[in-house]
Amino acid sequence: MPTLTSYVCGAFAHGKGELVPLLNPATEEVCAQASCGGLDAAAVLDHARLRGGPALRALTFAQRGELLGKLAATIADHRDELIETSVVNGGTTRGGAKFDIDGAAGTLQAYAELGKKLGEARELADGETVMIGRGAKLAGRHLYLSREGVAVFINAFNFPAWGFAEKAATALLAGAPVINKPATATAWTAARMAELLVAANVLPDGAFQQVLGTVTPLLERLGPQDMVAFTGSSGTGTTVRSLPALLRHGVRVNVEADSLNAAVMGPDVAPGSSAWQTLLRDVSREMTEKSGQKCTATRRVLVPQARVAEFLEELVDRVRAVKVGNPASRDVEVGPLATRQQMVDVHAGCARMRGVAEVACGEERPANLIDIAAGKGFFCGPTVFVARSDKAVEEAHRDEIFGPVTTAIPYSGSADDAVALVRRGGGMLVTSVYSEDREWGSGVAKAIAPWVGRVCMVDSKSEGITLPPGMVLPDLLHGGPGRAGGGEELGGLRGVQHYLARTAFEGPRAIVERLLG
Amino acid sequence: MPTLTSYVCGAFAHGKGELVPLLNPATEEVCAQASCGGLDAAAVLDHARLRGGPALRALTFAQRGELLGKLAATIADHRDELIETSVVNGGTTRGGAKFDIDGAAGTLQAYAELGKKLGEARELADGETVMIGRGAKLAGRHLYLSREGVAVFINAFNFPAWGFAEKAATALLAGAPVINKPATATAWTAARMAELLVAANVLPDGAFQQVLGTVTPLLERLGPQDMVAFTGSSGTGTTVRSLPALLRHGVRVNVEADSLNAAVMGPDVAPGSSAWQTLLRDVSREMTEKSGQKCTATRRVLVPQARVAEFLEELVDRVRAVKVGNPASRDVEVGPLATRQQMVDVHAGCARMRGVAEVACGEERPANLIDIAAGKGFFCGPTVFVARSDKAVEEAHRDEIFGPVTTAIPYSGSADDAVALVRRGGGMLVTSVYSEDREWGSGVAKAIAPWVGRVCMVDSKSEGITLPPGMVLPDLLHGGPGRAGGGEELGGLRGVQHYLARTAFEGPRAIVERLLG
Repeated sequence: MPTLTSYVCGAFAHGKGELVPLLNPATEEVCAQASCGGLDAAAVLDHARLRGGPALRALTFAQRGELLGKLAATIADHRDELIETSVVNGGTTRGGAKFDIDGAAGTLQAYAELGKKLGEARELADGETVMIGRGAKLAGRHLYLSREGVAVFINAFNFPAWGFAEKAATALLAGAPVINKPATATAWTAARMAELLVAANVLPDGAFQQVLGTVTPLLERLGPQDMVAFTGSSGTGTTVRSLPALLRHGVRVNVEADSLNAAVMGPDVAPGSSAWQTLLRDVSREMTEKSGQKCTATRRVLVPQARVAEFLEELVDRVRAVKVGNPASRDVEVGPLATRQQMVDVHAGCARMRGVAEVACGEERPANLIDIAAGKGFFCGPTVFVARSDKAVEEAHRDEIFGPVTTAIPYSGSADDAVALVRRGGGMLVTSVYSEDREWGSGVAKAIAPWVGRVCMVDSKSEGITLPPGMVLPDLLHGGPGRAGGGEELGGLRGVQHYLARTAFEGPRAIVERLLG
Repeated sequence: MPTLTSYVCGAFAHGKGELVPLLNPATEEVCAQASCGGLDAAAVLDHARLRGGPALRALTFAQRGELLGKLAATIADHRDELIETSVVNGGTTRGGAKFDIDGAAGTLQAYAELGKKLGEARELADGETVMIGRGAKLAGRHLYLSREGVAVFINAFNFPAWGFAEKAATALLAGAPVINKPATATAWTAARMAELLVAANVLPDGAFQQVLGTVTPLLERLGPQDMVAFTGSSGTGTTVRSLPALLRHGVRVNVEADSLNAAVMGPDVAPGSSAWQTLLRDVSREMTEKSGQKCTATRRVLVPQARVAEFLEELVDRVRAVKVGNPASRDVEVGPLATRQQMVDVHAGCARMRGVAEVACGEERPANLIDIAAGKGFFCGPTVFVARSDKAVEEAHRDEIFGPVTTAIPYSGSADDAVALVRRGGGMLVTSVYSEDREWGSGVAKAIAPWVGRVCMVDSKSEGITLPPGMVLPDLLHGGPGRAGGGEELGGLRGVQHYLARTAFEGPRAIVERLLG
């Protein structure tokens, strides 16, 4: 059985803390153990700040981009074994694992290309030179330059590869050394990835470190130039953000958290139409892929009253056809939840919903699990609730049920009512709007926009063109306000800017204009 | 004696709380009283969200810009009476008061012009449309749209007009209703300004409110669409940022706080040269203007060892010539500190410095105060320390002494040493670099940039061209990392974006491209 270790200060190192068993969530068998905690946090930070930072900042964007391209290639070259650890330790189907691994490689590659485009520079202009006053002699300009700190990532259990890659691609391109803290429960993929990245010997010493176990001692030592990127629950996100050391030093913190993502069916969407088919494809996929353990999964479907019956009939048909079980079997389309605690939480959320809402389909534990021993595995059957009462609608907005679960919410079909319901989510990563009436669709899309990080629009010509809303794209921002954490990742250059300092330079025009190399 | 009130829910309203006496800090006489606290926080927020927000968002940028132009004109038209309240209640000289009032009008006017430039739109593109995937049919685009929340301002005692205006200009242009909370001690100017703005009847109902006294009940009720802009001490900034309601809902908080701003003399700067003269002009002005109570005042002057004696001689000559006393006398160039507590803090900071550093000039209380009764007034004499020992350098970096005080720090003259010393400030709003060697100056400017919000560069051709570094400009960012709070205000459109939502739109190219009106 492998013992996973941290990679710090240039070496794979056992922690002085506990050995934590990692389970296969389909069989509940121990598949690996993680050597956690007890690291010298100050030494880890020094290694990043004194070795990794200067080495990265000496490189141009193009050179950093080249490194990212090699990281992408390393992950792609070892795709199969990373999928394997993800299936065994994450309970992920092969399809779900590919989504994670290919997402990681694709994101790194996209930023490799951005680095190439940015070229032989180490700083970026933000806007043009502006003249100050009336004399045309005094000028100002804003530049983005590398910060001098370290980027600490706290990553969620559901995307050990992609979640790391989307943070690392932007930070490394900005010249920031990174320290990744994967979720312990699914750390095997992250640990294997670290081994591969280190063996590839691509990054300068100190540019990448990974710690297993608690990250608090690191966070408590962060300062004004450092950055934190967190993905996980709203509650833990708030805890991280509340750490006095981070607040006192104004450490930049980016949080991606819970999100009651919605899909809105417009009143014009007729059963069988192109938009109808796309909506069904998207909802059934988003609720089942990775057992619904995606921050971008669709948690609410707003359906015009008149369409509810037909919609539920078709959705339930699709959901009931999905095969649940041990993802080691290639037939299986939905695996278990990643941990026992996740299962307990999802079951508890479903129980609360069952108390107030109609159940269109779904059992706590499906009867015919494929390749699963009796009573074993952290399962939840794909479940569709219908919130017809105020109480049910209220419960649907209380907590995110982080599993293969969605709730259909009937509404009047008016744009105002749709917008009001979407808003009740309190801040979303993504929401998708389905309407063949472009006026209606664009109107709703813009009205909900202040509450949503990314709005996907689907019309009659979208079939085969649009991507499922849960697909995070390197060129578009990933993040959302309020409950979703208020963060902004990716979005091309936008995500890189989170790791850069933006400074105004003021002085005689001749100097200011020559600042940019 | 005037009783100042809050302006909430469309009316000037006495609070149910205490009546707080406001002093003239030169005479210690009560000049007004403020009716504080006891407001219905929920009603105030509702008024902003339900009346002010929708009314502002219905306007285009150009229309909002027009409103800002009228606010600017209102302040400019009543310049003299606002100067008067500032002299009496703020202890500000007429010059210092003009700096505040004209800064307010100028900033509002600059954003009026920006609004005009943005034209008949209500949303802004962020970058171009990007194509997604290889099909050229799926596209993405980022837009900035108005958030649906309210902007709460917590303003410092030193700039009752400008501090408000720089926040209000950006927020109102973004379509956000504002609630201003001025510092109680110097609230007269803010209260008078509110009366003038309300009498001018320019803004839609609910777009502007002002509360005297505690703002905590308001902050505790903020949600995911709301924004806070704070200016004040690091400690209070951290307290505001730490409020659970703000952390839980991901409320956007912009903090401008303490700042150990530096001026760096390059090794090439010869006594009597142009850069030398500009440095002396800047340092003597920045340490005395508004009795040194400016977040952008120069707190540290890095002087090459070889120049220390000559520099101190000239600086001390200038500082000793400055007349201190009651700003009601037109002769007076430096008034008192704004409050007794400010004086106590400044004296305590100076006492700590006196224990470890050399005093080039400055007394706790100057002997010949102009037009001041014996023992009255919250004064501190303009003081120059010299930090020659490690202990003195350390003490100079402990706390900002928020008064007419600066510390000269001798250094080797090497760029690396200058940069290392600047960094010890832990994050600054502004730092200025004086060198006739453009290579040297630009090199230091860029090296310190990650630690500084705005870097001012001065060379041999700067005389009569550059502005003093303490001058905040609407087109350049105002803010700084770390100790300075990590905020970003102004900077033209950049400051407006703080109050806007940035959303990614994804969909068929034809829809995405038509989203922007």
